[in-house]
Amino acid sequence: MTLNPLFPTKETLGLNTDLYELTMAAAYFESGLTDQLATFELYTRELPKTRSFLIAAGLEQALHYALNARFSDEGIEYLKNLQVFESVDRGFFDYLKDFRFTGDIWALPEGTVFFENEPILQVCAPVIEAQIIETYLINTLNVQSMVASKATRMCLAAKGRKVVDFGSRRAHGPQAGVLAARAAFIGGCDGTSNVLAGHELGIPVFGTMAHSFVQFFDHETDAFQQFQKVFPDNTILLVDTYDSIRGIEKALNLNMDFRGIRLDSGDVGELAVTGRKLLDQAGRQDALIFVSGNLDEQKLLYFSLRDLPIDGYGVGTDLVVSADAPGCDLVYKLVETTDDGKRVPKFKASEEKVSYPYRKQIFRKVKNEVMEEDLVVGWDEVPDSSDQTPLLRQFLASGRLVSELPDIWQIKETMQQQLSRLPTPLKHLHSTEVYPVRFSEQLQESLKKLTAEYT
Amino acid sequence: MTLNPLFPTKETLGLNTDLYELTMAAAYFESGLTDQLATFELYTRELPKTRSFLIAAGLEQALHYALNARFSDEGIEYLKNLQVFESVDRGFFDYLKDFRFTGDIWALPEGTVFFENEPILQVCAPVIEAQIIETYLINTLNVQSMVASKATRMCLAAKGRKVVDFGSRRAHGPQAGVLAARAAFIGGCDGTSNVLAGHELGIPVFGTMAHSFVQFFDHETDAFQQFQKVFPDNTILLVDTYDSIRGIEKALNLNMDFRGIRLDSGDVGELAVTGRKLLDQAGRQDALIFVSGNLDEQKLLYFSLRDLPIDGYGVGTDLVVSADAPGCDLVYKLVETTDDGKRVPKFKASEEKVSYPYRKQIFRKVKNEVMEEDLVVGWDEVPDSSDQTPLLRQFLASGRLVSELPDIWQIKETMQQQLSRLPTPLKHLHSTEVYPVRFSEQLQESLKKLTAEYT
Repeated sequence: MTLNPLFPTKETLGLNTDLYELTMAAAYFESGLTDQLATFELYTRELPKTRSFLIAAGLEQALHYALNARFSDEGIEYLKNLQVFESVDRGFFDYLKDFRFTGDIWALPEGTVFFENEPILQVCAPVIEAQIIETYLINTLNVQSMVASKATRMCLAAKGRKVVDFGSRRAHGPQAGVLAARAAFIGGCDGTSNVLAGHELGIPVFGTMAHSFVQFFDHETDAFQQFQKVFPDNTILLVDTYDSIRGIEKALNLNMDFRGIRLDSGDVGELAVTGRKLLDQAGRQDALIFVSGNLDEQKLLYFSLRDLPIDGYGVGTDLVVSADAPGCDLVYKLVETTDDGKRVPKFKASEEKVSYPYRKQIFRKVKNEVMEEDLVVGWDEVPDSSDQTPLLRQFLASGRLVSELPDIWQIKETMQQQLSRLPTPLKHLHSTEVYPVRFSEQLQESLKKLTAEYT
Repeated sequence: MTLNPLFPTKETLGLNTDLYELTMAAAYFESGLTDQLATFELYTRELPKTRSFLIAAGLEQALHYALNARFSDEGIEYLKNLQVFESVDRGFFDYLKDFRFTGDIWALPEGTVFFENEPILQVCAPVIEAQIIETYLINTLNVQSMVASKATRMCLAAKGRKVVDFGSRRAHGPQAGVLAARAAFIGGCDGTSNVLAGHELGIPVFGTMAHSFVQFFDHETDAFQQFQKVFPDNTILLVDTYDSIRGIEKALNLNMDFRGIRLDSGDVGELAVTGRKLLDQAGRQDALIFVSGNLDEQKLLYFSLRDLPIDGYGVGTDLVVSADAPGCDLVYKLVETTDDGKRVPKFKASEEKVSYPYRKQIFRKVKNEVMEEDLVVGWDEVPDSSDQTPLLRQFLASGRLVSELPDIWQIKETMQQQLSRLPTPLKHLHSTEVYPVRFSEQLQESLKKLTAEYT
């Protein structure tokens, strides 16, 4: 029998969407309005309560999707046989057979800081195409942006100490482990335990031993010695399998040149202090202390504020599932259509879910290298000052890539530059500051006018 | 330039692991102990605070991994070039080249209810093999078990109303959407919006229209009519784009035979009551009411307790990210090795992270079709009553599949049978009941003895 690993593949990209994208596509198709241009914007209605900013990430995977989403014959056969499509014109399936995304995509470059209600990605395309790609775009930008900004929080809390993603085992699936490693690196982490992420992205990979390795040998010291023999320059001894302090003492008694120790249970802060003393007394001032085990940014900050002798952290579950905010209310909204060359504003008015009409651009006002305000304007508006640069950049034109994408190290640099400009109060873990995002008067007027028309 | 979608593939399965699995593997390899048999058990140290039971899921993907994990030449080349491996015997890379998992795997069948400290999967294999596959096994069982039991909670709260997974866009990556759809279906959901999950697993797919479709047309009613024209038997009208009540009234005025309505914002409970009245008054007693929009099991229970006229739910983010417990402390621990045919107990003693030694089996005592107690015993122990059946079953023997795997409908049946036997108090959302899981005296004695030896 065949076991299904449920891997996403290039061949099934078209199907990796919500059914309603395809039922709507069928309805657009039959309406004859297939080619009418529409602009959709992807943004979060509100920041998670625990976050005062987010870091854009996941664009490369989103663009890959837009460039490669297709429907295979076999996939179309599956759709044809679904009862829901039984009354749909067969011409629709011919349309799917030839489906290509032919529109434009503008977006914030990965690593850009963003806030609520700011479009982070913009699709201008025939409505049917823009609709079909919705689910995947939200998906990949959502998870990576959440994990990237979680990583940023952790790195801010660690105040310069190394932070490594150890979370693959708790990520939401094998692919999620790799996506989280990518996002964590963008957000500031120094590397990952995920070998595949290292292989695919060229980012540093870290890891030495688990408790099982120590347990496997009859004596803890046998495990330590065996590891040191094989990895003379890279031995981080996991000392807490039975008793952390005794583990450190045993390691020191071996007189080996191990590189450091890792503490993974108990009061790791206290143990780090005692461990440092023991190491120093033995003349091992050079030995590093790494800490792991259910860490979150609150604990990292606690350790930092006490200036505990910790050289680096392995962070797992809390990072990769973005535990304080595992989901973000990222939405993809129709804001404008083009009818006979005329721009028609689109908005949504239902309670608590208002959306601004018209295609937009964001201008960020930076003064003395500090961000002061974001101004969201209609696409045709010109900002009131020439020293403002637009944040949304074009990546796809007529379905083709028109911007060279940065590699992950460049994205990390973008993030660091952005972070350096973020007002300090927003960087506090428990910040209650709200960064000013202002919608232009023209946009506000349009929303007011449209709402009045509908009520 | 090439954009990387970061898909997991069969070719890179070996690398989809934590680096420390491979550094330990190298150290085992060089110790000459490669073939020594070890038993690892996968279990959760504690149930998430919000859960009183979990549903096992993800085994099919875990077994696929054990059967297919390989290291390609290109993957090995990558590893060879990592600095960390520079002093490792080149024979290790030949070992990886020929790597196959040759051990046994026992596990709870998918759909089985389980509790803390109970092994849900057991690997008996040469230690190096058992170690290498750790990360992926934890990963796939962790996410699917969490989402499956989350779905069960939601379905219990919905008290018979339809529950459909709408969460793909907020799942942690494209693959996570499919995994979540699978797990949600196992846990009791009626289907998913994820077309690829429908295609891969043959489960029902659902979906009709989004707000964008309604916004796209000049008038809400144009959208309703166009959709009805294309899907005469399957039109669920999304009525809340501008004003839910007016949306329903407009739909009724069209005198079309739509199948139902969906409410996605505002006080959906209140709106359902009013909506039902309007529909009934218009003679549309047959029209269904579906509700969606940031739902969790608490809201579903609230609606159920008030017996609101809701026919079904679309649940999204909260389900697929298992928001109350996005991570579970699933661990994979060495419990036993075999040395010269002799069984050697292995345990871990560090603070708050005790693990029981020896390979185990679980017996579940069921009386009058109600679960009474689980007894965890050593592998060689015989339970005190013959009416108890062992829960862990063999799936792999010497690296080969020896059990036919059930399809997803059969797994769902297993879950339903299990749920019917679960004591009622444990099914309450806010249950404080703890199901009795007892470790045999023999196991307790072994742990006591080993701990004493080490302290």
